[in-house]
Amino acid sequence: MSEQWIVGVDLGGTTTKLAFINLNGEILHKWEIPTDNSDEGQNITTNIANAIDSKLVELKEQKAKLIGIGMGAPGPIDNEKGVVLNVVNLGWKDNFPLQESLHSLTDLPVEIENDANCAALGEMWDGAGSGARDLVCVTLGTGVGGGVIANGNIVRGINGAAGEIGHITSKPFGGAPCNCGKSGCLETIASATGIVRLAEDEFSNAEAKGQLALIFAENGRVTAKDVFDCARKGDELAKKLVDEVAFHLGFALANIANTLNPEKIVLGGGVSRAGDILLDAVKENFSMYAFSAVRESTTLALATLGNDAGVIGAAWLIKNKLSI
Amino acid sequence: MSEQWIVGVDLGGTTTKLAFINLNGEILHKWEIPTDNSDEGQNITTNIANAIDSKLVELKEQKAKLIGIGMGAPGPIDNEKGVVLNVVNLGWKDNFPLQESLHSLTDLPVEIENDANCAALGEMWDGAGSGARDLVCVTLGTGVGGGVIANGNIVRGINGAAGEIGHITSKPFGGAPCNCGKSGCLETIASATGIVRLAEDEFSNAEAKGQLALIFAENGRVTAKDVFDCARKGDELAKKLVDEVAFHLGFALANIANTLNPEKIVLGGGVSRAGDILLDAVKENFSMYAFSAVRESTTLALATLGNDAGVIGAAWLIKNKLSI
Repeated sequence: MSEQWIVGVDLGGTTTKLAFINLNGEILHKWEIPTDNSDEGQNITTNIANAIDSKLVELKEQKAKLIGIGMGAPGPIDNEKGVVLNVVNLGWKDNFPLQESLHSLTDLPVEIENDANCAALGEMWDGAGSGARDLVCVTLGTGVGGGVIANGNIVRGINGAAGEIGHITSKPFGGAPCNCGKSGCLETIASATGIVRLAEDEFSNAEAKGQLALIFAENGRVTAKDVFDCARKGDELAKKLVDEVAFHLGFALANIANTLNPEKIVLGGGVSRAGDILLDAVKENFSMYAFSAVRESTTLALATLGNDAGVIGAAWLIKNKLSI
Repeated sequence: MSEQWIVGVDLGGTTTKLAFINLNGEILHKWEIPTDNSDEGQNITTNIANAIDSKLVELKEQKAKLIGIGMGAPGPIDNEKGVVLNVVNLGWKDNFPLQESLHSLTDLPVEIENDANCAALGEMWDGAGSGARDLVCVTLGTGVGGGVIANGNIVRGINGAAGEIGHITSKPFGGAPCNCGKSGCLETIASATGIVRLAEDEFSNAEAKGQLALIFAENGRVTAKDVFDCARKGDELAKKLVDEVAFHLGFALANIANTLNPEKIVLGGGVSRAGDILLDAVKENFSMYAFSAVRESTTLALATLGNDAGVIGAAWLIKNKLSI
């Protein structure tokens, strides 16, 4: 029998990532198409189906090679019904039947899952968490997302809201307002946006000095990357900000680990590219607040799949469904 | 075929609870024997085996009626190897082969599990969490224990330390020392011991007034029950203490729910007998710190099985193992 391929799809607000992936979780071909949000998002699945067909023609491969499509999408998903409950920025109305739509266009088995969960599954299958049956993934990007795997399965919870690690409350009193309606969420501190906000608070409150303050004075803004770059060079203000982010992340992750004792907690997303300066500081705080048996057994690591985690995790859904 | 019974055993430091339980999780007969910790705990399993035989004789029932023994034991357990890793106060040496020992004495299938997890399984099978596939149980007793069930299965974690909810850090700075070696653990606040400590801090620090202070002045001590009883009667100091306990519990449980979105969080143990005065205050804090989709779907409830949760959950292990 010739090699079988799974299609992994990672649907984003502006770009849709696609990949042909083998049964070992290796990406053989990957490409991107723009996400067309117009007309209530009615072109999204048609474009994906066409993109798969075109790529097969380009590669001179038969459709029979494909055994299914796994797809990650933003927002809450009812994966048993195959429905996206609500995603404002894709144009879809509530309860969009994503699985059925893509299946009817391609005649392939389709599995769908929340995109943060797909990233966690990707890291479990083939990334930093490789082989771990208990894994927590935290994606530090514009916001903070999360995926929780226990006993080898995604934990979705009763309302699909498990893994909302970004909305763990880090500051019970006086925290910054969060998009979710609460205040003091981890996302208001440990996301790229949160780090920039913390920095800007410093510039407005104090007679800020040093390299980071200079960048702000020159450009009128700083990025999360600026903060880590300056901290790496010893800038005091930047170091203080990294300490604050690392405290809240380490504290929240220790309490998650006191509850779940996962084999690994994987940090991904743009902010995690800061690397060891962030990881080491988070680890230090984690050790302080983790129960001894947890401290000894749960390890923190940086994600290794980068932007590919989503398509790989999506493909895993098919591998898992077909038990292959 | 006549009715089949499962033996549920809940091993405690001073007393061992036993029960014959049917396949619907109903207790038919229950009794207790003292736990004999002498001689490195070598009599514990023999006493259990003998107690089962004697009870069968007393009931004029045949051993063939029994299909297995499920047993909860304190401390960390390797349930695949059937070994209790370490339990100081039972006399056993590390890695005591509990499953093998009890099986060789009774010739019945034996399954073992941590006792807090058994309580959670009991509430899932037949108690407050009946039918829930995602459930968190918190036992507020002398200490604070926890059991986490996700997708219908106990979450043990990589080192068996999942569910250590009592060792979630509630006060990152300046908290009271905990037996675990950390400080500021939830257990130092929301256990019976913790509540008494909080009260005593008030008596020593301030010019304490009111009913609770009077009890302390008369008896030289107060109990957690005194605190709730006085709060119910409007005593200001007692109300303040209940508020503090409820804040830390509600905050911790909201953050657990932001991560796991369980259908139910069940509060059990002696402190939970305070009832609605505690539950309502915890719910109020929970609502404040839970993500909206979690707030709408995760409910908090008092445990309903009381001291029977352990033996019922232990029996569930056999039901689950035999898939009956």
